[in-house]
This record gives sequence, structure tokens and C-alpha cells, in this order.
Amino acid sequence: MTNLSNTSNQQKPSGMPFERYRAFVPVDVPDRTWPTKKITHAPRWLSTDLRDGNQALIDPMTPARKLLMFELLVKMGYKEIEVGFPSASQTDFDFVRTLIEEDRIPDDVQISVLTQAREDLIERTAESLAGAPRATIHLYNATAELFRRVVFKVTPEECIGIAVNGTQMVMKYAEKHLGPIVGTEDFGYQYSPEIFTQTDTDFALEVCERVSDVWQPEAGREIILNLPATVEMSTPNTYADQIEYFSRGLTRREHSAISLHPHNDRGTAVAATELALMAGADRVEGCLFGHGERTGNVDLVTLGMNLFSQGIDPMISFDDIDEIRRTVEYATNLPVHPRHPYAGDLVYTAFSGSHQDAIKKGLEDLDRIAAEQGKPVSEIPWEAPYLPIDPHDVGRTYEAVIRVNSQSGKGGVAYVLKSEHNLDLPRRAQIEFSRVIQQHTDAEGGEVSPEEIWQIFRAEYLDKDAPLKLNSVHTSAAAGEKDALTVNVYVDGEATALQGSGNGPLSAFVEAINELPKAQEQGWDVRVLDYAEHALSAGGDALAAAYVECSVGDQIFWGVGIDANIVTASLKAVISAVNRAG
Amino acid sequence: MTNLSNTSNQQKPSGMPFERYRAFVPVDVPDRTWPTKKITHAPRWLSTDLRDGNQALIDPMTPARKLLMFELLVKMGYKEIEVGFPSASQTDFDFVRTLIEEDRIPDDVQISVLTQAREDLIERTAESLAGAPRATIHLYNATAELFRRVVFKVTPEECIGIAVNGTQMVMKYAEKHLGPIVGTEDFGYQYSPEIFTQTDTDFALEVCERVSDVWQPEAGREIILNLPATVEMSTPNTYADQIEYFSRGLTRREHSAISLHPHNDRGTAVAATELALMAGADRVEGCLFGHGERTGNVDLVTLGMNLFSQGIDPMISFDDIDEIRRTVEYATNLPVHPRHPYAGDLVYTAFSGSHQDAIKKGLEDLDRIAAEQGKPVSEIPWEAPYLPIDPHDVGRTYEAVIRVNSQSGKGGVAYVLKSEHNLDLPRRAQIEFSRVIQQHTDAEGGEVSPEEIWQIFRAEYLDKDAPLKLNSVHTSAAAGEKDALTVNVYVDGEATALQGSGNGPLSAFVEAINELPKAQEQGWDVRVLDYAEHALSAGGDALAAAYVECSVGDQIFWGVGIDANIVTASLKAVISAVNRAG
Repeated sequence: MTNLSNTSNQQKPSGMPFERYRAFVPVDVPDRTWPTKKITHAPRWLSTDLRDGNQALIDPMTPARKLLMFELLVKMGYKEIEVGFPSASQTDFDFVRTLIEEDRIPDDVQISVLTQAREDLIERTAESLAGAPRATIHLYNATAELFRRVVFKVTPEECIGIAVNGTQMVMKYAEKHLGPIVGTEDFGYQYSPEIFTQTDTDFALEVCERVSDVWQPEAGREIILNLPATVEMSTPNTYADQIEYFSRGLTRREHSAISLHPHNDRGTAVAATELALMAGADRVEGCLFGHGERTGNVDLVTLGMNLFSQGIDPMISFDDIDEIRRTVEYATNLPVHPRHPYAGDLVYTAFSGSHQDAIKKGLEDLDRIAAEQGKPVSEIPWEAPYLPIDPHDVGRTYEAVIRVNSQSGKGGVAYVLKSEHNLDLPRRAQIEFSRVIQQHTDAEGGEVSPEEIWQIFRAEYLDKDAPLKLNSVHTSAAAGEKDALTVNVYVDGEATALQGSGNGPLSAFVEAINELPKAQEQGWDVRVLDYAEHALSAGGDALAAAYVECSVGDQIFWGVGIDANIVTASLKAVISAVNRAG
Repeated sequence: MTNLSNTSNQQKPSGMPFERYRAFVPVDVPDRTWPTKKITHAPRWLSTDLRDGNQALIDPMTPARKLLMFELLVKMGYKEIEVGFPSASQTDFDFVRTLIEEDRIPDDVQISVLTQAREDLIERTAESLAGAPRATIHLYNATAELFRRVVFKVTPEECIGIAVNGTQMVMKYAEKHLGPIVGTEDFGYQYSPEIFTQTDTDFALEVCERVSDVWQPEAGREIILNLPATVEMSTPNTYADQIEYFSRGLTRREHSAISLHPHNDRGTAVAATELALMAGADRVEGCLFGHGERTGNVDLVTLGMNLFSQGIDPMISFDDIDEIRRTVEYATNLPVHPRHPYAGDLVYTAFSGSHQDAIKKGLEDLDRIAAEQGKPVSEIPWEAPYLPIDPHDVGRTYEAVIRVNSQSGKGGVAYVLKSEHNLDLPRRAQIEFSRVIQQHTDAEGGEVSPEEIWQIFRAEYLDKDAPLKLNSVHTSAAAGEKDALTVNVYVDGEATALQGSGNGPLSAFVEAINELPKAQEQGWDVRVLDYAEHALSAGGDALAAAYVECSVGDQIFWGVGIDANIVTASLKAVISAVNRAG
């Protein structure tokens, strides 16, 4: 690197104690071939959302949320799913039993469970799987020098002994508890030298060879050798070097699946995975949206969609990415970032005028090509400025977000609503309302004043009183498990009493709306997707503003309600969304 | 790649329309050398937070927030800061004028402004900089084939003409408006062929050569050639190949700074930047925490800290990463993800018992080494399981988060507080309270029941009534700009009336506390870092729970307050934090 900066703006030492750290020294592979390789098909995927992902949540998933996540993973197309660490947690043990005893594992899905290399834990692990139609036992032990020296105080030979004995015990107890499937392709064995990236690569190879000596992989009896980057150590090329070196050095390579298990300590887990696939790996373990200890496991959504964007079938369906996101956010109680590739709130938006102009011309050109070929745009090869994929392919839409009054330096409809009316719209509601404003400016032209923004907002969200209008609300949350609710509304001007029950007033109300003859007639099928509420000002007598994102039929609408009573505000918000659907 | 999966769990086609997409074809560089290179020093950094970052916010920063961000960047050590697009926005123009006229640019900082290649815009851009002590003009035009064909409908020669003429006009109008500094090192010129990654690399080289023919770089007169990956096209190695090819092919290389401007469409911007630095680039443009259009620009925090973790001085200070995060969150109104490398809420936590055990042993070993050498741990080379850096080096602490009652499958103190007491603790407060619980279990041993959790919570956050205790509150938010507040409290049992004013009751109250003799005596210096409040149940007469994160002296404490009045609840929360500080 040259360093040509002017003398006046030379960067200065930070004063941070960087001398405490040493550069990682990777294995030396001068004849590496991976930089010339391309990824041509999807790897085998394993989701560890229910194990590595779940273990790092502030609140681990309840069994119901685990089941919801398992069903999502199955529906998306994952065929290998690590479901827990049954010997370490009764909850995990019970969950595995539920899956097996309630026959919830589809014929083409193989569950996997993790265990440490101790005899009692291995037996307990095998017990958890009794009766499973197909299963994999995943054994690990620490092979990294730091762990051998500081944590476990074992010699290299003792470390190998732990892995070898563990493998023998897996075979013994699998035979005992899983008899019918052992010896068939329906029983799998996976071994992880932990932490692979911090282990001398030759030593990792030696441990894996000795484990394979015990397992004896052959046709129809593979071994999965999983090489975790539990801590990312350096730039992603160093992981690829380690994987290429390992893959080349391994005997019985054709009966071994080399598996990646990258974490994201340096923000480069997706890259490390891609380069390591180029280096010859077969299989990838990760989590949806990158959950997992600390910075998380590699993100399976980004990896899959990266393949898709290059014309490769990810073998996983992401065609309703918002539904995937909502389910994962619900199960993990952690957000997906607004700039998450492919799924973030902001990633199919354009704020810059020049970007908007380029995208507009690009989309018009696709329309022209589609018309010439007499095909729908969805069948035309995708090529558009700034948009790597067609948002429709994941169930999203492109959104040009205009700047209202941006010359004032206080641009944005959200700013006006917040600063002048104390309304703090959720992000997706801001984007939706920006589109409403844009339709107005497209029609009227010119700039929109804060007063006009407020009028448009009122007309769109607050003042619509048909087909539904609220009259009065009575709730009781008394005895039973569910809230009971009576709401008097006008439906097309006609007074109607709605009654419902649910886990809260919102779900009770929505249930009642869906049973209206009007709902059936219009095909409303209202569902609440998101909800937020806040006080409009400080003080005990404050009004509350509620925001509800609803699906109404197959469309999504936000509604807004304002009321002194926070329950009434939220019901008004549902009515607002339904009335906007029309 | 082999594909050994069992026949029963073969992955199936997703049904997604992947055939619409084509694999990116990068430049062919069979003799690339970057995979053998290592990064040995920090690149030149340019922050574009105030330009590319700001342009993609739902609400662009107000001038006050821009100034706050500018000052943060200066304080961290950035010497090149792109501050706006003055010809496209009056706000940006005014901001540049403010910086110059109020003499806010330190002697060793060079601001930069972006412009399109049109004469009127270039003149306006130069005007914005009049009187600047040092400045860079950054010109771009579209060189990518798709843009030439679909958006601008220009031939390759016309495209080169735009860049060449633009460069001539920059020189002309810089001479006119910036006379005194033109021709010195204090005036810089930067050119970007946009979108470099989508431009044939030979064509990008040709445009840049023709631009350099005009600018005539030489010793003391560098040209910055900025090569934007405005859209990430493929795996990060392909960007490195493009950069190495470009760098090798460029004449006048020693007077040209090759600059990277990566975006994160595929989640690999950090990796692409690192590999491209290995390939010979000199300079990196990005944003703190990766803001910017769509998926964002490359994240300067992760890049800098990745260098730090390898023993390289980033030349930027990240020693109070929470303060950086709070300022950026405030200025952008967007969150930093809890799993963000180095800055996320969860990244220095360990949830797994085996991780906690390994970290504990690692830290003990560092203590032992430090004691042997008679040095503080902060001077001992860092090496600990699962923690790539010492959290103290960025002003954070390591936190082992225990699982309370995890066998029930409803683990976690947060769950108990939420499900049984409707308290929805902010994430960092959850982590803090987990530590409080852990101190309890370390002392008492064994599992903690939900009832014990509640008792510990009350004792820690709600029931402490010394040194401060609330008596009564009177607020007025009437005429003036600021809220006035009178609060009667007991200080060590003695009734005292506090009066304060501020932008809200919290700031008024904190101001009043800081003026107490007791505060001076104890060195409290209370500041509010974060605040959240919610209703404890549905209904108009609900209690509110307020959570306030305060710095008290140099420590951070959460406080919790519950009251029917939401203002009183928040003041109680401040008192709770102060009483916890003691």
C-alpha cells in the first residue's frame, strides 16, 4: 500500500493498546486453488437455530416457540436440523422426545443432537433419540491448544483419546438405544474438533483421522467432520486456506462430509463460508438471521439468498421473507436489523433521487423487454440498477422513499409527525406512509408542507369511519385464561355488537371481526403482524397512540388509533387498518 | 464438493425463480497475489457518515445532529470526512458553510464533498467550499454498462467525455472559488467510476487514466481513484481480483490513492474490504456501524476493530464504544444490532455453561500471568477462550449470563419478570440484572425460584430509599422552551426541594440532582444514557414502569420506577439508579 495522504491530514496513533494482540498465523497453503473456484450449487445445510441459536438467547425459546421454529425450518426446506443438547438440558431432552413421540419429524428430515465426550452424557443423548426414524449424534471435544493448556489441561494424546473413546461410546450407546437404525443410512455420526480455527490444522487432521479409524466411513456410512470457526480468527481467506488444506490432507475424503460451522466475530462469517465452500467444503451449519453465541452463527438467510442472486437454487424457500422474519423475531425475541441483506426494512428502498431515477428507468426497461417478449416481468432475466434481486421474489416490494420538505433540513414525514404531533411511527409504518405521501405528490406535484402531511395522515389513518366505526368497548380479563371482550361497532353504519376472546384484547377483537358477515363477504381474514403503542405526552392523563400492522386478505396495512384508553387506541388502530383495506 | 447426504434427506428444489439471475463474471486474474498478503497497517479512512450514511436515513440528520456526528468523527481520529452533497441539497450546502464559517474544521482534518459531473453543480460545489482551509472535491459519473445503456444512454466515449470534462470543470471552478489552496496539498481531487464493480475493469481503468491525464498527478498532487462496490456483485474475492487488476494496470500508481467504497448487499462488505486491502488498495470509505443506502456502506467500526484484534493500530479510537454507539444511534435514529461485532449488547456475554467455564479459566490464567510478571492484566497479551478482544479495551465488560430455572424451559430472569410481573426490561438492563442474580447465586448456591428473583429485583431496584427518596413532584411545561420541575425529595432522610429545568422532566431532574451538595460530595455527576417506559397492563388506570440507564460518576447503573404517573415513574427510576450507585 502506498500512503499518499497530505502531510496535514496524516492519521495519528489511536492510543489503544493494540500491542496486546497478536496477528493470527494461519496454515500456509501457497498452492491454494480456491480463489479460482466458483460455487455452482447449494451446499448441504444444517440449521442449528434450535441448538446454538437458542442457547444464546436472553430468554431461550419455550417449547411452543421451539416447535414453531422447527416447523418453519421444515417448511423452508431444511433437511438436517440440530434440535438440542439433550444431555445438558432437560428442556432439550423433552423437546427431542416430543418430536419423536408425536411423530413430528417428516420422512425426509434428519434431526441431530449435540453431546460432549463423556460416557454418561453420551448415553443420555442416545436415550433421547430412542425410536427416532433417522438421527445424527454430534460429538465434540476441545482440540485447540489454548483450551488443552488452560481449560482442560490435557496432552495432545489425551485429547485424541477423548475423541476416540467418545466415538466408541457413541457407537455403543447408539446400538443400545437406537438399534434398528444403526448401521443404516438413517443413523449419522458427526464429529467436531473444537475450536477448529484455533487448532493447529495438522493436529485437527490427526484427531479426525483417528476418529474416522473408529467410525470406519465407507459407502452408505459417511462421517460428518465439522470444522467450527467458533471464533473467527482472521480475514476470511485464512479459513478457506485451512479448509483446503484439511480437505486435501484427509484420507477417506469421498466418504467424509466436510462441514463448516462459522461464527461472526469479525463480521465476515458469510464471506468465510463462501470462500470455504470454494475451498471444497460440502456442508454448512448456521442460523436464520445469524443468531448464536456473542456475534452469532453464520446467517443462513444471507447465504441462501446470495446463491439465489447468482442463479443457483438455494434448495431453501425464501419466497415470503417477511413471514420468516416475523416467525424468527417472535421465537427469538430479537430483532432483524433494518439493513439486514434481503430481509431488512430498508433494503429495498431508495432514498437518493439519483438512485430512484436509475431504478425507475431500469424497471421501465424490464417492462419494455417483457412486453416485447410477451411475458410477465417475473419471467424476464433480472437486471436493475441498485437492486441485486427483484424484491417480489421474496414477497417484498421496491419502495422509493421521498424526502418531504428536505430543503428544511428536517426532511421526512416521520420527522414532521414526531416533532409536531408526537407520533412516533414504527419504521415500516413510516415507509408505508411515505408511499401515501408520494402518491399525493405524484398527483399534485411540488413540495408538501407539514400541515398537508398532517391532513393526509389524518385522512388516511385517523378519519376513515367506514366500513367500521367504533362505538364502545367492554373488556373483562377476569377468571379464565383468555380475555373476553365486547365491542360495539357500526358496520356500514349499522350498530353491531362484537364479542370475542383471545390472549389479549387485540386477538379477541380480530377474531370477532373475522366472524362478521362483512368480513366473509370481503375476504378480509385480518391478522395482526406487529403492534406498538406509546403515550403522546408526559403526564398521567396522556393520550396513547397505537400502531397495528395487519394483513387483510393478502395485503398488509398499518392502522393508527389515538385514545386516552390504551386498549381503545389499539382497537381503533385495527379498525383503521381494516378501513384502509376498504 | 462431494454430496454424501443420505438418500432420505436429500434437499429439494426450492421452487424459487433462480433462473432469472446470472452469475457475476469477474475479471480473470489467474496470477493474483493477494491471497498470500497480510494487512500490516491501517488504511487511510474516509467517513461518509454525513453523506452516504445520512442520505439513506428515514429522517436525515438535523444540522445539530450532523454537527454532533462530525465532532464524534473528529474525536475518534478520522482525518478525511465527506460532509455532504452541497449541489444537491441546500441543507448540505448550509452545513458545509457552517463548518467553514464557524471555523469548526481542525487543522489536521480534510472535509470532502460529492458532486455529479455537470457544470452548474460543480460550480455550486466549489462555491460551498470557499474559504475552506483544506478540502477535497469528489466527482463521479456512471461508467457501468447497465447505466450507460439503460439510464443515461451514452456511448463509452461519451461516458469518458463526461468524466474528462467534469475534471476540467472541477479544476476551473476550484481555481475560481478556492484559489489560495488550489495547487497545494490542501486541495484534493477524487474521482469515482460508478458502479466500479459493475463496470468492465479495463474500461474503468481507461476512464481513470483519462481523468488522470487531466489532473496530472505527481508528487504532492495525488489523485484519489475511488472504486465503488455500490452494489456487491459476488463473493468478496472477486472485488479483490478487480482491485489487484486495476492497481497493476494503472500508470502513475505512486501518485494515485486507490480507494474502496464497499456496500453490503451480500453481507460481505467487511470481507471484501479486507481482501481488497490485501490486493493493494490504500484507502477505505465507509460509515460507523454500516449505515448507507439499502444494506449500508461497509462498517468502519468492525474494520477498525478487526485490525486492532490483530495487533494493528487502527489509528482511530474505539475506547468508549458504547458512547460511539449512543451518539450514532441518536444521530441516525437507527439501532445497532445486539449481535453487532464489538458493539452489540450481546457480544461480550456468554450464555452457555461450558463457554462460561472456559472463559473463567482463561481469565484466571491471565490473572496468574499478570501476577507472575507484576503487571496489571491490561498489559498482558490477551488470550482468552471465546473472547477475541478484552472487552475493557472498548470500555465494556464481560458478562456471564446465567440461566435461572432453565430446566423449566422458561429460563431467564427476564422471562420471569415479564410473565409474572409484566416488566419488560430493556436488553442491557436484563443483562445487568442477570449479574445481580448471579452474585446472589454465587453467594447462596443453587437455583433461584421466580419468587426469589422478584424479591431480589425489588430489593435491588424498587425498595432502596436512601440516600434519595421521592416525596412529591410538580411539573410545568407551560410558556418557555424548557420544562420546569419542582421535586420534593428526602436526601439522607432530610426533606429537600429540588428545582430544575431542561428539555424534559428527566433532564431537569438530573440537573437538579447534580447540584445537590450530596452529589458534589459523592462525585455522582449523573447523566441519562437510555430510557424506556411501558404500561404494566392494559387499561386507562394502569401503572407504568420506567427504566433509566444512568452514568453515575464513571459507572453505569439501571434504575427502575413504577408509578401511576409516567413522569413520576421515570423520576423514581433515576432515583433507583442513583441509590444503587450508593
